[in-house]
Amino acid sequence: MIPTIEWKNGRVFMIDQRKLPFDEVYIEHSGYKDVADSIKKMVIRGAPAIGVAAAMGVALGISRMEDDEKKPGTIFNEIVRVLGETRPTAVNLFWALEEMKKVFNIFQKDIRILKQKILEKALEIKNNDEKTNRDIGRVGEVVLNNGDTILTHCNAGSLATAGYGTALGVIRSAKSSGKNISVVAGETRPFLQGARLTVWEMQKENIPVTLITDNMAGYLMSKGSVDLVLVGADRIALNGDAANKIGTYSIAVLSKFHNIPFYVAAPLSTIDIGSASGNDIPIEERDGNEVRNFHGAQITPSNTKVYNPTFDTTPFELITGIITEKGIIRTDPEKKIKNMLKKNILTNFRNKKNSIDEIIK
Amino acid sequence: MIPTIEWKNGRVFMIDQRKLPFDEVYIEHSGYKDVADSIKKMVIRGAPAIGVAAAMGVALGISRMEDDEKKPGTIFNEIVRVLGETRPTAVNLFWALEEMKKVFNIFQKDIRILKQKILEKALEIKNNDEKTNRDIGRVGEVVLNNGDTILTHCNAGSLATAGYGTALGVIRSAKSSGKNISVVAGETRPFLQGARLTVWEMQKENIPVTLITDNMAGYLMSKGSVDLVLVGADRIALNGDAANKIGTYSIAVLSKFHNIPFYVAAPLSTIDIGSASGNDIPIEERDGNEVRNFHGAQITPSNTKVYNPTFDTTPFELITGIITEKGIIRTDPEKKIKNMLKKNILTNFRNKKNSIDEIIK
Repeated sequence: MIPTIEWKNGRVFMIDQRKLPFDEVYIEHSGYKDVADSIKKMVIRGAPAIGVAAAMGVALGISRMEDDEKKPGTIFNEIVRVLGETRPTAVNLFWALEEMKKVFNIFQKDIRILKQKILEKALEIKNNDEKTNRDIGRVGEVVLNNGDTILTHCNAGSLATAGYGTALGVIRSAKSSGKNISVVAGETRPFLQGARLTVWEMQKENIPVTLITDNMAGYLMSKGSVDLVLVGADRIALNGDAANKIGTYSIAVLSKFHNIPFYVAAPLSTIDIGSASGNDIPIEERDGNEVRNFHGAQITPSNTKVYNPTFDTTPFELITGIITEKGIIRTDPEKKIKNMLKKNILTNFRNKKNSIDEIIK
Repeated sequence: MIPTIEWKNGRVFMIDQRKLPFDEVYIEHSGYKDVADSIKKMVIRGAPAIGVAAAMGVALGISRMEDDEKKPGTIFNEIVRVLGETRPTAVNLFWALEEMKKVFNIFQKDIRILKQKILEKALEIKNNDEKTNRDIGRVGEVVLNNGDTILTHCNAGSLATAGYGTALGVIRSAKSSGKNISVVAGETRPFLQGARLTVWEMQKENIPVTLITDNMAGYLMSKGSVDLVLVGADRIALNGDAANKIGTYSIAVLSKFHNIPFYVAAPLSTIDIGSASGNDIPIEERDGNEVRNFHGAQITPSNTKVYNPTFDTTPFELITGIITEKGIIRTDPEKKIKNMLKKNILTNFRNKKNSIDEIIK
């Protein structure tokens, strides 16, 4: 498996996901600002992967601190602020920064030990993410039947995480159990994560995959060509509403209309108990040129007014089940979420601004 | 208004819609095979425009006939075969060929008169199309309210017809009546008729237009940002089911879910009484490279398996009304269609193959 992100020789390496599938190029990061820039520009994307990148960004920033630094807290807060302001929707980013904060609070007295502990925590978050994904896969693969054709959207795969993937992890796990699974990948405009990343991941593992444009999903469902829908999530509210890549909500409505099961696969770190419902989840809007252009090819005049929301929110009523590492939530999301969450992974961030303030304070 | 297609000096000129909005280039056609090629390659597209192009293609083919040709029927049938095999879904193509056939049958005895009459008929089809669109606009604009935001898909505009447009004609007509209308255009992958053609047409007339990717439609509806959906059609069955650009069906399901009116605007020549329901309408599948490439840029490995249906069919239950030049069909489609259709524009083509055989025989 090609690594999404790695710590090597005091630097952070990320595969440049904007260049996939044609070029497998790694970008080297020597400071936390570079990491923040790569998150913002989507060199790395996918909620769990963004969480890992943020943790490694903190480790990188702290590793550059003088051992006799008098105000480590000021520097730490600045690192958190810069990393926290990269992308607003994926809650794993704020969760990871919060985890780093706990370590900082304990070890800030001795900078040399702090550096070591902070790095250990970042690597732990990375390693745990892959383990968690394998658990999600084991929990979730029971919903897939031999011979199923699964529609997925965007890339909730190895590249969206530290490895293995959430939605694609469930598919990998079903395949390991000997089930024949075919995948239909929506191309996922504007950034084309489906066409570029999901297709590439599935091809590498010889899982049959067919690419469609996003607007073909309903037609395929009407023809009986989709058995089940499986997507990831960027933030899940306490009531089970799930924010994910723009287009997910449309697919959920189409699934309901056609009586096709619609599953969301995500780690518990994607759940934000501070968001009571989907209405509390901030939806990022990105530069309109993502819609106006692609790979240097302009498709509409540069003065064309565009709208570019990056995510949408699917209400829990449209979700058949949320697959987590601790089980599948099919009913009573609030109760089940509270039962599943351990104290140490509780997240509570109403929005980006609040989140950062809360971590810094 | 920039002409979509014109007859000039014994030749047919079409604006190359593949190059819009950046280059306004006309392609000159001196033979019917060139016209067929341009229909196939989507130099010209849109059901009514394809009908006009087919009629002009026949006129071009007949104009090249020797005045003492002994077997004009053989040549005519070959012209009809070549033009009829270009695209299978838009019924206006077969309707126009049938219209030309009637003229041929009457005047085939005198080739010089035949040439003149055939050309007159082709020009009549073109001129009537624009007149019909203005009627559709007048009939349909009553469903639009001042201040409405209209979601449209693909391009059912001036470029899809001899002029004025069907769905966009209704919008033009509402604007002429003094209503403020804003348009949201889905980009319409894979061929991007929305991003390239609808945006261009609306900008030329100062009608406010916002471009979205196709997968954003549901999100916009959930936010209350769409008042009404208005699309064209490529073939309408006797029971009111309507085939249109891929993605239309998904939008219709989303409209139903959000209680948003969903209208189809099309001339009666788009109705095929030989198709009892949408199941009888043949759905064209085009080259997979339209999906693998994004406006010239490759987005997925060239061996990626893709699915590329060009149209889908929306059942009448999801359609609020079909706007024709003779009125709006909201209920009892079969009865109303039969009442509206005059004998001379009855079309009856179950599918492409049958259609051509029927015209040739």
